[in-house]
Amino acid sequence: MIKVGIVGATGYTGAELLRLLAVHPEAEVAVITSRSEKGKPVADLYPSLRGHIDLAFSDPNLDQLAACDIVFFATPHGVAQSMVGHILQRGVKVIDLSADFRIRDVQVWESWYGQPHAAPDLISRAVYGLPEINRDAIASATLIACPGCYPTTVQLGFLPLLEAGCIDLNDLIANSASGVSGAGRQASINNLHTEVSDSFKAYAASGHRHHPEIVQGLNDMAALAGGSSQSMVNLTFVPHLLPINRGIHSTLYANLTDLSVDVQALFEARYADEPFVDVLPAGSHPQTNSVRGSNYCRIAVHRPNGGAKVVVLVVEDNLTKGASGQAIQCMNIVCGLAENAGLAAPALLP
Amino acid sequence: MIKVGIVGATGYTGAELLRLLAVHPEAEVAVITSRSEKGKPVADLYPSLRGHIDLAFSDPNLDQLAACDIVFFATPHGVAQSMVGHILQRGVKVIDLSADFRIRDVQVWESWYGQPHAAPDLISRAVYGLPEINRDAIASATLIACPGCYPTTVQLGFLPLLEAGCIDLNDLIANSASGVSGAGRQASINNLHTEVSDSFKAYAASGHRHHPEIVQGLNDMAALAGGSSQSMVNLTFVPHLLPINRGIHSTLYANLTDLSVDVQALFEARYADEPFVDVLPAGSHPQTNSVRGSNYCRIAVHRPNGGAKVVVLVVEDNLTKGASGQAIQCMNIVCGLAENAGLAAPALLP
Amino acid sequence: MIKVGIVGATGYTGAELLRLLAVHPEAEVAVITSRSEKGKPVADLYPSLRGHIDLAFSDPNLDQLAACDIVFFATPHGVAQSMVGHILQRGVKVIDLSADFRIRDVQVWESWYGQPHAAPDLISRAVYGLPEINRDAIASATLIACPGCYPTTVQLGFLPLLEAGCIDLNDLIANSASGVSGAGRQASINNLHTEVSDSFKAYAASGHRHHPEIVQGLNDMAALAGGSSQSMVNLTFVPHLLPINRGIHSTLYANLTDLSVDVQALFEARYADEPFVDVLPAGSHPQTNSVRGSNYCRIAVHRPNGGAKVVVLVVEDNLTKGASGQAIQCMNIVCGLAENAGLAAPALLP
Amino acid sequence: MIKVGIVGATGYTGAELLRLLAVHPEAEVAVITSRSEKGKPVADLYPSLRGHIDLAFSDPNLDQLAACDIVFFATPHGVAQSMVGHILQRGVKVIDLSADFRIRDVQVWESWYGQPHAAPDLISRAVYGLPEINRDAIASATLIACPGCYPTTVQLGFLPLLEAGCIDLNDLIANSASGVSGAGRQASINNLHTEVSDSFKAYAASGHRHHPEIVQGLNDMAALAGGSSQSMVNLTFVPHLLPINRGIHSTLYANLTDLSVDVQALFEARYADEPFVDVLPAGSHPQTNSVRGSNYCRIAVHRPNGGAKVVVLVVEDNLTKGASGQAIQCMNIVCGLAENAGLAAPALLP
Repeated sequence: MIKVGIVGATGYTGAELLRLLAVHPEAEVAVITSRSEKGKPVADLYPSLRGHIDLAFSDPNLDQLAACDIVFFATPHGVAQSMVGHILQRGVKVIDLSADFRIRDVQVWESWYGQPHAAPDLISRAVYGLPEINRDAIASATLIACPGCYPTTVQLGFLPLLEAGCIDLNDLIANSASGVSGAGRQASINNLHTEVSDSFKAYAASGHRHHPEIVQGLNDMAALAGGSSQSMVNLTFVPHLLPINRGIHSTLYANLTDLSVDVQALFEARYADEPFVDVLPAGSHPQTNSVRGSNYCRIAVHRPNGGAKVVVLVVEDNLTKGASGQAIQCMNIVCGLAENAGLAAPALLP
Repeated sequence: MIKVGIVGATGYTGAELLRLLAVHPEAEVAVITSRSEKGKPVADLYPSLRGHIDLAFSDPNLDQLAACDIVFFATPHGVAQSMVGHILQRGVKVIDLSADFRIRDVQVWESWYGQPHAAPDLISRAVYGLPEINRDAIASATLIACPGCYPTTVQLGFLPLLEAGCIDLNDLIANSASGVSGAGRQASINNLHTEVSDSFKAYAASGHRHHPEIVQGLNDMAALAGGSSQSMVNLTFVPHLLPINRGIHSTLYANLTDLSVDVQALFEARYADEPFVDVLPAGSHPQTNSVRGSNYCRIAVHRPNGGAKVVVLVVEDNLTKGASGQAIQCMNIVCGLAENAGLAAPALLP
Repeated sequence: MIKVGIVGATGYTGAELLRLLAVHPEAEVAVITSRSEKGKPVADLYPSLRGHIDLAFSDPNLDQLAACDIVFFATPHGVAQSMVGHILQRGVKVIDLSADFRIRDVQVWESWYGQPHAAPDLISRAVYGLPEINRDAIASATLIACPGCYPTTVQLGFLPLLEAGCIDLNDLIANSASGVSGAGRQASINNLHTEVSDSFKAYAASGHRHHPEIVQGLNDMAALAGGSSQSMVNLTFVPHLLPINRGIHSTLYANLTDLSVDVQALFEARYADEPFVDVLPAGSHPQTNSVRGSNYCRIAVHRPNGGAKVVVLVVEDNLTKGASGQAIQCMNIVCGLAENAGLAAPALLP
Repeated sequence: MIKVGIVGATGYTGAELLRLLAVHPEAEVAVITSRSEKGKPVADLYPSLRGHIDLAFSDPNLDQLAACDIVFFATPHGVAQSMVGHILQRGVKVIDLSADFRIRDVQVWESWYGQPHAAPDLISRAVYGLPEINRDAIASATLIACPGCYPTTVQLGFLPLLEAGCIDLNDLIANSASGVSGAGRQASINNLHTEVSDSFKAYAASGHRHHPEIVQGLNDMAALAGGSSQSMVNLTFVPHLLPINRGIHSTLYANLTDLSVDVQALFEARYADEPFVDVLPAGSHPQTNSVRGSNYCRIAVHRPNGGAKVVVLVVEDNLTKGASGQAIQCMNIVCGLAENAGLAAPALLP
């Protein structure tokens, strides 16, 4: 059994790791840390875990974490970068769910997150944990930076088109919408039921922290497809807040430069062997509840009136494929387990 | 007092007309027809109207309708076109909330709605009931075709840009999302609480009946702004289904052809005198609950990174400004009443 | 026009006062105070009020409040009791929406609210603002203590039975459920959308602050009906949290001591002349959305299998009839206006 | 591997069986029948099952069902009774999720369900599938009648009190509330999102089909505890409709006849060895989302003010412990598997 440590499991991504690991056939949770909830049984904070997780939160302790095979960070940005070096030195692999190691350009990171990076030397060591493009690198990684929730949908949605080199890079649009759990488990008036439910809005229309992460990923794909190595993609990204708990839906727009391409076939071929990317039949519209609690990303592709505009619809559960499920998928890869170990349960519907 | 008749008031737009007219200071409902609910008190179907509306549904009767000053049609498409002619002949004005008279090209209408039009000769007589562009024509109209719910948001959101001639007409995108009441009050598995709530999806990504209506309106605006009279606008329109009761949010994307334009000032100037269009301060993100139950349309404009892409965020209540509220606004105009009579109440929040 | 001041209008009951007063034909809001939001336009906090309320929050100022005809307190408990005396001395009437003056026994108040009462001498001056039992006293009051949201439903539901003296006082049960707005507009993890939506729970099953207020009211009713003046009612009250914004539903249980009573007729007779209490036909089940945003309380009565158990179903909007609507109803009474002035709009459905 | 057949899997309890069986380690679904959806892949109806269930619906066929080890009926009442006899004759065990075999008195069944019973001779053969009271009988059964969703919560909540003989049987109250999935997947205006969401109501306050089932169960418990064999329990049961997808919350009221009993200890002792009944610490309030998608029933007990009234709070997922999860629990028992096989996953929260 893989021994797992989790740093900072009081938030929703931490709770989602626990939910999934509770039934993982080859991993067991050994340590769960939280400074603020030290000593409290995990199941007191999350009654849904009563009978499943018997551990209590403990103060972060290097020796305890070093006794694990793998350590997840489910912390706000800024925490992992201050601790990861010590853990790696002890020969323990780290999977970071926060934003600390997602962006290769440290200056870009620092400008978006408003603080100096505490471990810039580790950034280049981090492997971006999107198995659909990085499976081999993940398998041999020691530090894995899990993608953000929005970036997973946008990258998986544009990937086949970018690899095929058949769209205009200069005008990509990602109109995305996320459930409220994406905002975390923080006391906040903005995320009260009364403020969010029975309503909808865009936010951060003028700029969001996931923008540079997405652009970095899209540029990589474009460069691999034979483009120049310079930054090329011009992306407009507008996130919205949905009155649902879990789920991201991204509606992507691009202009085809090659009208002869069969986009349905392109997507089906690209993801034929991917265990967690499901391309729906032509004409479909994926619904977020079809992936609620599951690690699937479901995609449909449309060309309205058969024109040059391609519209890609992508759904995922932001806490699962968008965070903790994908982190466990990475763990499975890096530990040599079946990639879907612990991730085989269907979505909860209705 | 204006005497009002309503044909087909069993659906949500009919109920919304009744809700608003119940407190209208200068109008009273005299006749409410429904073949299926004939004889049933309206308040039995809508308990929210107990104590407000004492009428019962009756069979449509031309003499009764002809005794009214104005008749609203809140019927599915196809009904108004078969009855409107008779009512107009009796000198009674008609406001049609259905799609029957929105599209000037009868062939386009017939191809989208899948049936022959029963009154093609009346189409040219109909005035499109969007007061922000047609106030004078509405004032002297006898037959008013109220805009669809999505079309109202998309047209009001693009209007200042089209009038200013500062965007590329060849690539407009309307990414819209509507509450479930937009689907009407029909028994349907797709709109069950279990299927819709805690979920989100796009639909009709390959084509929606509101597309030709929107394009017609946008082309008119572009033509008035000095463009050619030929069809010019290329619009991609993708509607989505929100797990909320009321509200539409449209996120519009266009490319500026003139980067020097101050889009905030442009919108504020265009709508300065409009009683029901509210341009929010720069940097804002309108939320649908800020217009819940009210006739306001609230708009914010963004230029991410100050670039060429302009993003317009538009919200309305699909049953109010998107249907019955706008219909009453038209009634007020055509009857010479204060334009906001009966429409002065703020939105219900939370 | 009645000049109105509102102390503490940043919460939901304050916002609801503003929503209702914005269209009140004979009252206008002159002052809105908030220490925390001083200087901020009200419409910046509540975008739904843009175009309706042009005032900004100001620091509480006795002279400004004294220039009003009537002052509402929409503050947490403890605030009104420290200010009301000064305002009353200036000859201004006060309507308090908080719990400060609802309970006549100051020791009971202090034990439930955990603090000494700052104005015990004013308690006896306060009139309990439930028009259905206190209309005349309200008309001549200078200080009105508005009932709590739960207590309004429970008292109106038991009132006809208690007045008729036909139920066993020793075993009354109120199983109530409230929407989230009842918890106010406070940053709190417990009331996040993620914690509340798609879920349901009881709370405070072992004791809730509204219990003594309800019992005081029920005892008064029982005493008036000819019982002894001693405390007699034995009430079990269990509140629950609904994943809705607005609305309270109380399911009341009592045992009939007189099986011959026609409970339907009893309720209809008792409330025949009440403008805001609507007794539904026999066999009905009131739904909270039938009163959403309106001042109505709707009631249905059942006797399962014609037995001794009577089940009363009561709904109200907790912010309207349960708080701000009832406060305005009291204002109308004390100011000699039509009792339904500003309260005539139907509920918002759907 | 146990070979499983499912008759009528187009509804929500059928889909829930499939969701759970998809990851059951020792059972596989061999046949799924539906007359209406014959030939359609299951995953076309439930996209959440894409990648998990590859079968298509087929017409019910006795030979195919007889080749299974066990057959579930997830059909409306009336269907199982017409088919079960043939299947039992072929030596295949049957677990019926419908109401057909729950009630021992066929006249009571026929009066509540309004039709003659087609297999009255099989009723006595059926074992009521509530493992907490019938585990041994279930283990040797050939026909298992799974309890209704409401009855599971009410019986588990009253069980320890009835077995201890410490409450007055003459006045029991069950105030229950269910999510919308309890109404099934039927096109119906009453269960539209627009009608249900942001609202709450009681229904069937004068009588519900689950009443006789609950009373039969409670009487059995009381009789076993030493009471007479006559019907003794007097129960008032009022169901309510919650605007949530899954979950039942029952608030139970009874009067203690022995004030010295420690109800918390009583419940903890009774359920100490039950794998799926979780008694929460004193003072707790279970929330339905703590069991969303799981087979747990969580219970808390209160005695307000330490008086004679005992209040029991019970939650379950109506589709899992209230239907399909409990059915699989019964399958595990009757097949000699670990009782929690396939049922070990924690609830989905948030």
